[in-house]
Amino acid sequence: MKTPNLQLDSRGRLRHLLTMEGLSRELILSLLDRAAELAEATSGPEKKLPLLTGRTVVNLFFEASTRTRTTFEVAAKRLSADVINLQIAASSTSKGETLLDTLKTMESMQADMFVVRHESSGAAHFFAEHAAPGVAILNAGDGRHAHPTQGLLDMFTIRAHKAPGRPDFSGLSVAIVGDVLHSRVARSDIHGLRTLGCTDIRVIAPPPLVPVGIEAMGVRVFHELERGLEGVDVVILLRLQKERMLGAFLPSLSEFHADFGLTRERLARLKPDAVIMHPGPINRGVELEGDLAYDERSLILNQVTYGIAVRMAVMAEILGETAGATGAGA
Amino acid sequence: MKTPNLQLDSRGRLRHLLTMEGLSRELILSLLDRAAELAEATSGPEKKLPLLTGRTVVNLFFEASTRTRTTFEVAAKRLSADVINLQIAASSTSKGETLLDTLKTMESMQADMFVVRHESSGAAHFFAEHAAPGVAILNAGDGRHAHPTQGLLDMFTIRAHKAPGRPDFSGLSVAIVGDVLHSRVARSDIHGLRTLGCTDIRVIAPPPLVPVGIEAMGVRVFHELERGLEGVDVVILLRLQKERMLGAFLPSLSEFHADFGLTRERLARLKPDAVIMHPGPINRGVELEGDLAYDERSLILNQVTYGIAVRMAVMAEILGETAGATGAGA
Amino acid sequence: MKTPNLQLDSRGRLRHLLTMEGLSRELILSLLDRAAELAEATSGPEKKLPLLTGRTVVNLFFEASTRTRTTFEVAAKRLSADVINLQIAASSTSKGETLLDTLKTMESMQADMFVVRHESSGAAHFFAEHAAPGVAILNAGDGRHAHPTQGLLDMFTIRAHKAPGRPDFSGLSVAIVGDVLHSRVARSDIHGLRTLGCTDIRVIAPPPLVPVGIEAMGVRVFHELERGLEGVDVVILLRLQKERMLGAFLPSLSEFHADFGLTRERLARLKPDAVIMHPGPINRGVELEGDLAYDERSLILNQVTYGIAVRMAVMAEILGETAGATGAGA
Repeated sequence: MKTPNLQLDSRGRLRHLLTMEGLSRELILSLLDRAAELAEATSGPEKKLPLLTGRTVVNLFFEASTRTRTTFEVAAKRLSADVINLQIAASSTSKGETLLDTLKTMESMQADMFVVRHESSGAAHFFAEHAAPGVAILNAGDGRHAHPTQGLLDMFTIRAHKAPGRPDFSGLSVAIVGDVLHSRVARSDIHGLRTLGCTDIRVIAPPPLVPVGIEAMGVRVFHELERGLEGVDVVILLRLQKERMLGAFLPSLSEFHADFGLTRERLARLKPDAVIMHPGPINRGVELEGDLAYDERSLILNQVTYGIAVRMAVMAEILGETAGATGAGA
Repeated sequence: MKTPNLQLDSRGRLRHLLTMEGLSRELILSLLDRAAELAEATSGPEKKLPLLTGRTVVNLFFEASTRTRTTFEVAAKRLSADVINLQIAASSTSKGETLLDTLKTMESMQADMFVVRHESSGAAHFFAEHAAPGVAILNAGDGRHAHPTQGLLDMFTIRAHKAPGRPDFSGLSVAIVGDVLHSRVARSDIHGLRTLGCTDIRVIAPPPLVPVGIEAMGVRVFHELERGLEGVDVVILLRLQKERMLGAFLPSLSEFHADFGLTRERLARLKPDAVIMHPGPINRGVELEGDLAYDERSLILNQVTYGIAVRMAVMAEILGETAGATGAGA
Repeated sequence: MKTPNLQLDSRGRLRHLLTMEGLSRELILSLLDRAAELAEATSGPEKKLPLLTGRTVVNLFFEASTRTRTTFEVAAKRLSADVINLQIAASSTSKGETLLDTLKTMESMQADMFVVRHESSGAAHFFAEHAAPGVAILNAGDGRHAHPTQGLLDMFTIRAHKAPGRPDFSGLSVAIVGDVLHSRVARSDIHGLRTLGCTDIRVIAPPPLVPVGIEAMGVRVFHELERGLEGVDVVILLRLQKERMLGAFLPSLSEFHADFGLTRERLARLKPDAVIMHPGPINRGVELEGDLAYDERSLILNQVTYGIAVRMAVMAEILGETAGATGAGA
């Protein structure tokens, strides 16, 4: 956790993607540009580019997440890589040394990239520390720590819809609502927003769901939804990790919804052209009212689409021979 | 269930495949012709055609069925599509709205086709109603309702072996034996047979396994196997869904076999050149005697082979740019 | 089990791979040469050869083994085959006839090769006996009987590191340590070593873990580790099948380690340039001391790499049109 720059090589190019921390504004913008190029190049019926032909991408999931696994699988296949899906019970690799044995074994099969999902914060970092030269690690979510491709796709979404053609996110107000304490998405988004120049970042949650000292990340904390939403351009709703929380922090899901759920009525607080985001999958009636997910202001499905392009961009950036060649006659 | 023509576009071309109902004779015959072409084109050692290169086919299975899933996976890969397998617990999507969220999320990954298997009748129809333009739904079995690719492959089988070169199935006698009540295959077959001109369709089953009012579909019902088999050209045995039935309808599997199992002795009732079909997997000693599955009159394995070709034809018909181009220098 | 030559066709070429028994020295060396060629041809970033384009390889696993399944999946994909993974509960196919139905069904989908893993000795043999012409069976481990691709990759490893440029293994001393009784790897290795001319093969294990009569295979048995290791060139550690043994044969894992675990201290008994092998996954602190797996004398990870090449060689040998064409400008 201490050396995010493990993810850059000596020339400052991306080698692993572990966290948004330590990624420069230039690097993030270049990844988002590349994602836009790749989205364009794969927008027709034949959505396949030969950028990673013959490369092997291993989805190494120690925590079940069909949806996240699928996004990486689709992205890798669109780049023509071979994909191997491995679902491993975290219990069978609870010791660092068995994690290491798993990594080394798969490396020996000449895998080029590991997409790692693990319930422990720092697991992806551990893999990156021990990876052989030429083997890349993508963090697909490690505990409460980071989920950097989600962070990047959220930046892509905000840029495309609220800041097209603008150099950065200055002047935008962004509110992050809900279970910030357990959310790797919140941490990744805050890092991304700050790096891209956003100066009005708000965190809205009941006190038990706000990490101690989060103000040091440059955010303002609100415990009242209506006040926090006032005049924002972007609302990012976080998924409530029901299984982790009930009892410990929350009286009930309906009380959470009553106080912190986004409703049509509360939408009036936002700027008129504000947008709604959520990393999915949504809990209807908890983070948001019934069908708001499909409201015209919702970008929730766009995020899924952009997520494929962003993951393709990261994979191509790290594994592609020449960083500039996307196959998109650019 | 009311509007099967949801599956046709405004020009009458196939857009989704949900049920045999509402498919015209011309459309069915054109799919069967195309399946024959594709079977021929993939009969060599290199069984791959570039018809769906870069397309993404998602197997969305809410009910475990390794065998059915595999047939669609093989068919899609032979057409060079990328295949994503998703096994989702039906319990986690029991509400229509979460089904919808799953569909919309996968659509947003730019999937082109969903092969849907669900224990609820009407699930595939629900998906088709809500699918975005350009996204196709193939029903791989929904509850007791329909299993149209099985219906098509059964028609392919009968045509190839009992009606080659003939314009329709007039003059053929076909018996469907066993658990008609729970069988989506029976319903699909009856629709297909009638559309192709078969006028002697018989249903043979004990009374509790015959749906009320099935005579309205133009079939004759027999409760005695020997009489029902008299002079038929084709016997279609249905798989007994043991888990669904014991106790409720049946005294025992051995009693079922005694009364309704096909045996070598009972084969004498059929026409001498009659053929035996079964959608598989067979329950030996229940629907049929020991090794009758591998008898020279059995087409059970041919059905599996034809099933790949028929599924390729449906996928190519719906997703292929130009309906006529099969890659089979036809 | 009686007719290993079921695996050769009438011209003596490989048709199935079931066991090391009955494979000639010439055939083994030709497979190892081909594996070396394929390893070379796939050593760059683009590790894909068009040798099996359009062929379908089915991983038919009746026993969970993510690691072994993955090696075959990677090998087949590197050769451009389509891969279908089927995990089937052994309980659902406990009778030979249902095994047969599974084989025939998958054959009818025009699968070209089945990689079979089963807990019952002889399962792969059963499949080979019943396979249609043109359909190949690879044994990926059947009960205690055989694991021939592991045997071949172990021979590849020893040849590359201890006998490069030499015509055979005469003059080498090889010790196999641990649970010989339950090990399909041990049997496959002993057959391979003898066929390649090794005359000093030692088996080191506590008496309950040595099969009765194993001396007839041309090995010497030691019950004391230090004595058995004296002066050997190669130590092959076997994985302890903990679940199968505790209670029945072994007092405890720590007692096994105390008496038969490889430690740094015990390494002094070996020749100075000796090498350590293990089929993986290792049980640290049982078969070997902590980090010996990553010692400079360990070839454990090399074995994984060679395993891919050897499996590619077997698949290409059996399914490739022309045995000589590897795509490796040889």
